[in-house]
Amino acid sequence: MAKQIGILGASGYTGAELVRLLATHPEMEIAALTADRKAGLDMGVVFPHLRHLDLPTLTKIADVDFASLDLVFCALPHATSQQVIRDLPDTLKIVDLSADFRLTDVALYAQWYGHEHYAPELQREAVYGLTEFYREDIAEGRLIAGTGCNAATGQYAIRPLLRAGVIDPGEIIIDMMCGVSGAGRSPKEAMLHSEVSEGIHAYGLPVHRHTSEFDQEFSKDAGREVKVTFTPHLMPANRGILATCHVRGSVEAVHGALASAYADEPFVVVLPMGEAPATRHVRGSNYCHIGVIGDRIAGRVRVISALDNLVKGSSGQALQNANLMLGLPEVMGLEAAPLFP
Amino acid sequence: MAKQIGILGASGYTGAELVRLLATHPEMEIAALTADRKAGLDMGVVFPHLRHLDLPTLTKIADVDFASLDLVFCALPHATSQQVIRDLPDTLKIVDLSADFRLTDVALYAQWYGHEHYAPELQREAVYGLTEFYREDIAEGRLIAGTGCNAATGQYAIRPLLRAGVIDPGEIIIDMMCGVSGAGRSPKEAMLHSEVSEGIHAYGLPVHRHTSEFDQEFSKDAGREVKVTFTPHLMPANRGILATCHVRGSVEAVHGALASAYADEPFVVVLPMGEAPATRHVRGSNYCHIGVIGDRIAGRVRVISALDNLVKGSSGQALQNANLMLGLPEVMGLEAAPLFP
Amino acid sequence: MAKQIGILGASGYTGAELVRLLATHPEMEIAALTADRKAGLDMGVVFPHLRHLDLPTLTKIADVDFASLDLVFCALPHATSQQVIRDLPDTLKIVDLSADFRLTDVALYAQWYGHEHYAPELQREAVYGLTEFYREDIAEGRLIAGTGCNAATGQYAIRPLLRAGVIDPGEIIIDMMCGVSGAGRSPKEAMLHSEVSEGIHAYGLPVHRHTSEFDQEFSKDAGREVKVTFTPHLMPANRGILATCHVRGSVEAVHGALASAYADEPFVVVLPMGEAPATRHVRGSNYCHIGVIGDRIAGRVRVISALDNLVKGSSGQALQNANLMLGLPEVMGLEAAPLFP
Amino acid sequence: MAKQIGILGASGYTGAELVRLLATHPEMEIAALTADRKAGLDMGVVFPHLRHLDLPTLTKIADVDFASLDLVFCALPHATSQQVIRDLPDTLKIVDLSADFRLTDVALYAQWYGHEHYAPELQREAVYGLTEFYREDIAEGRLIAGTGCNAATGQYAIRPLLRAGVIDPGEIIIDMMCGVSGAGRSPKEAMLHSEVSEGIHAYGLPVHRHTSEFDQEFSKDAGREVKVTFTPHLMPANRGILATCHVRGSVEAVHGALASAYADEPFVVVLPMGEAPATRHVRGSNYCHIGVIGDRIAGRVRVISALDNLVKGSSGQALQNANLMLGLPEVMGLEAAPLFP
Repeated sequence: MAKQIGILGASGYTGAELVRLLATHPEMEIAALTADRKAGLDMGVVFPHLRHLDLPTLTKIADVDFASLDLVFCALPHATSQQVIRDLPDTLKIVDLSADFRLTDVALYAQWYGHEHYAPELQREAVYGLTEFYREDIAEGRLIAGTGCNAATGQYAIRPLLRAGVIDPGEIIIDMMCGVSGAGRSPKEAMLHSEVSEGIHAYGLPVHRHTSEFDQEFSKDAGREVKVTFTPHLMPANRGILATCHVRGSVEAVHGALASAYADEPFVVVLPMGEAPATRHVRGSNYCHIGVIGDRIAGRVRVISALDNLVKGSSGQALQNANLMLGLPEVMGLEAAPLFP
Repeated sequence: MAKQIGILGASGYTGAELVRLLATHPEMEIAALTADRKAGLDMGVVFPHLRHLDLPTLTKIADVDFASLDLVFCALPHATSQQVIRDLPDTLKIVDLSADFRLTDVALYAQWYGHEHYAPELQREAVYGLTEFYREDIAEGRLIAGTGCNAATGQYAIRPLLRAGVIDPGEIIIDMMCGVSGAGRSPKEAMLHSEVSEGIHAYGLPVHRHTSEFDQEFSKDAGREVKVTFTPHLMPANRGILATCHVRGSVEAVHGALASAYADEPFVVVLPMGEAPATRHVRGSNYCHIGVIGDRIAGRVRVISALDNLVKGSSGQALQNANLMLGLPEVMGLEAAPLFP
Repeated sequence: MAKQIGILGASGYTGAELVRLLATHPEMEIAALTADRKAGLDMGVVFPHLRHLDLPTLTKIADVDFASLDLVFCALPHATSQQVIRDLPDTLKIVDLSADFRLTDVALYAQWYGHEHYAPELQREAVYGLTEFYREDIAEGRLIAGTGCNAATGQYAIRPLLRAGVIDPGEIIIDMMCGVSGAGRSPKEAMLHSEVSEGIHAYGLPVHRHTSEFDQEFSKDAGREVKVTFTPHLMPANRGILATCHVRGSVEAVHGALASAYADEPFVVVLPMGEAPATRHVRGSNYCHIGVIGDRIAGRVRVISALDNLVKGSSGQALQNANLMLGLPEVMGLEAAPLFP
Repeated sequence: MAKQIGILGASGYTGAELVRLLATHPEMEIAALTADRKAGLDMGVVFPHLRHLDLPTLTKIADVDFASLDLVFCALPHATSQQVIRDLPDTLKIVDLSADFRLTDVALYAQWYGHEHYAPELQREAVYGLTEFYREDIAEGRLIAGTGCNAATGQYAIRPLLRAGVIDPGEIIIDMMCGVSGAGRSPKEAMLHSEVSEGIHAYGLPVHRHTSEFDQEFSKDAGREVKVTFTPHLMPANRGILATCHVRGSVEAVHGALASAYADEPFVVVLPMGEAPATRHVRGSNYCHIGVIGDRIAGRVRVISALDNLVKGSSGQALQNANLMLGLPEVMGLEAAPLFP
């Protein structure tokens, strides 16, 4: 029998993306969908692209029968997640897509997010959800903290280099171009079509919150404190993140370390030396493309990674982790090719 | 064993879209890919979004072993298709995506396309490929003529109305907004991003070639000559076609005729009375959404249909037909939900 | 000395567009800018593209010294305009950009807009602001009601035809594709980049409010009641409206009537027979392009008009009217060429 | 009497942009427009957005009466410019928009552009056209070499810092996001709407040609050899370039040096400390916005500059230079505010 799945917060983009992915998953069945302010509505009304699917009606969280579920995806806003998950059965498997359980140190969480952590005891058991780097822990975990979509894009480019020791950990600069859907579906002036289309600008300055994930994970990999300069830009595209990372080392060693780290990975593709990836070539898919480009200045290397923020950056990553947690093949339901053009 | 499939003309958008769809098809295997001018290249070089797939190298048509194939998709340019298909084994099952075999009357073909038909004897066995209206003929056919993507969008809105006799066949106006990918991948000034983005205009005036398909099919349905006014517009979006059709009749009868015609169709969804579809809600999928909206002027009705030109309008339609021809479930490999946003 | 100008409601797109146009106007000077909720801010903070200009700080309406002003543009939301203008000095020249004074019959206003008119006595002196058709009245008017941007686009295509009696007034269908900026700067889910880009759909169904302007004006021109079928579509572009109008008559007579009506107009360009206009070719300008295309069905004609909703459709139109009211050359400050690409 | 102006190569985007700017210039008159392959056509046919203008018909270069002209803008393709300009009267004032005269050292030119310079004797008199840095030389020059649009954007951010000695010249990284119109109007697969929209990627790797301008000019400013890491990205927008530059120094000193350098400049605006510019806020204008943002890592600073590639990056810059050369006010015809949204 298919695994019974709940999605909390199904009225946002990551929730809808989970429904899209699960719709053709052979071993999962959507048993509950919640959206407290839209309870009672059909999902097809909230997201007409899903209207052909036979889905449960949206309910309030309080009306979900959690005992009947095998796993819950939590796609709620930051801070809300902590409060909701705290009250769920403590044996329920959960993949959280918010920022609420990403930082191991709750004091750092308070510092970056501006309020005390609401569920510090749960933080202790949370596993950071970047699949390729925590596969075993995720498979055995109960509460998985999905990564920031920006954070994931940068980590795919940099982590193997720090682990292999082929770059200078003190000299990392990450410029990122991020699609609009990462900002969610809540109406904001800055995300109107009239404000976004046909233009680009840096945002989240001087220090974006996702930097905290870089700090935590890169320092772990390098065995010393690592701080990066991170500058995200809002680009006029709905999906996709491109991270152009500047590192110092040998271009051959950098390419070699990445190629070796991802050689057996189903979703991370290292391009031939000198080729640059494009976000449009991973759109709608769980794939991450990484390119390595040398410079005429010896010792400078550009590592460029591209993924779809709603798939590999959040909902696809979440499903990949859920597959592991439920003992299913890791790639199940995730192998659709990108949509281009 | 999976059916062995060839794709002739794999370096264009419809060819690449076929590869994308077949990549996860459980009963088809891509055995040959051709692109005469790009023979010798990997598909992943021509279309980097497909680079993770294990695909045959592009070859010339002359180098294909047709005897080993169960079916061939022909995604070649207009006029070329007739010449290539004429020389293929006459037992090979073929789904052609060009305009070359759509018009039953080769004299009309010559008139609309400006040259004599190169394979009039093949035209006689060609079946028009609008699946929902020719399902049985397609299942038994050998050579299927895929419809124009514009032509398909208009026909889904209008055909059931003519068959049911609920509208005036002399009063049909179709305004259409069409995505850019329908123009193909050949470089043309008019299709540059700088020329297309942030604007809209009508094209193909005064009479677009796809009108010939409307003439042929609508006249068949109405049992009399039907001519429509058809005005396509190029919109700044890569995928999607929206047909806003003006008809005369009772809005209830119109909605009823459509609802009844498509009640059991897996891919055509008739929206509740008064709701309008959007191209973004079918993007990347084989679904067609149809809305019916009345007017304050009695007897005037707007029927609006939306589909993805590269899927339901061409490559998805082709695969749906191929499934029928090969005795597979019609929906196989085509049920992925649309990609939104 | 330059005319002293006030702009009420300068924090919306039409207000900002007025500032842009006035910035290089040789005979007007911006003396007051209001935005009640943003009072105290610099215009360059609210609209960074205007940061190089030396402008008055935003104030509340109550703080404006109206006695010192020669003319006020009122770019406030619908319904608010009536209340604000009611309280302004009754000798002040006003160009209102809202819908509040467009309908001569206040009973019809109440019907279309859902509430009683707040200033029926002012409605009596309001002049409908479609410059080319009410030039003399505007020059002598005190309160001008700017037209709807959709309404303007359709009227440029149709009015000369009704006046000349060359089309059937009972058979007019207008399909319109409208840019996003027409929806304003208030955050709405439906106007997010993620919801709008790369797609199209009809909106304002079954009957959009701007239809009331067509009813009023077309009936006046035809000397009988005229009702049209009007279907606006939201297109993924910030600026621009394209009206594809279907009429019945002789294509030569239609082209002739338009060419003759606009022969001496500085901003309305009738294209050679058979050519279609494009919104991108009028972007950012006060020009309106009109094309006439025949059909193979005798007696059917397509008239297509294109303009920029923020210029000719609202703020440019308002300035053109203001020039007339102040005795300045009508074209002053409005002759900048369109911005393409 | 107005200055008589010729534009050679008027069928490309920079040529059309010159026409747009000159159309409202009070002291210049377009006396000749050339486009060898489109000779005999009206400009309004080639660029319908200019159809309302009364312009000379396009001719071949050979048919221009150069003796009657005061100044010529040369908007021809690279390499062609050298050959054409070589044969023009040697007293004619010329502003060239190509790459042909930007590099002082013709040996370096040959190295970067792959062929010998065709007019080395002219190179000696050419003045590099970045107005704010060579104002006096330009005013007295006869042949001005317009800068690369990418090169201009980076130089506005960096040059004052090198001159003031407030950054480390060995540690400069420039990531740039560039609009599509910079690639010109020639049809190329890579510039199709279907290939560009909704995506981003780095191009011109490993070393883009415009890097040579950085080398030349930055080294001059620093008084030592300066090499930068430069990575341009193609963004899905027609106009606009954003340069995110990483430098090492004190954030206060950096902001101070920029503010001081541009204090009296009419078109370069330094934003308050910590604010980031956006390309959409300079669109269609001759303005350049520059922001300075510190980092939590001491000594690291981001300088971000934004301009419109077709205006400040090429045609507007050219006109600014032409004003100087002809003794006109430098800002004449260039003060239109940006077009937003």
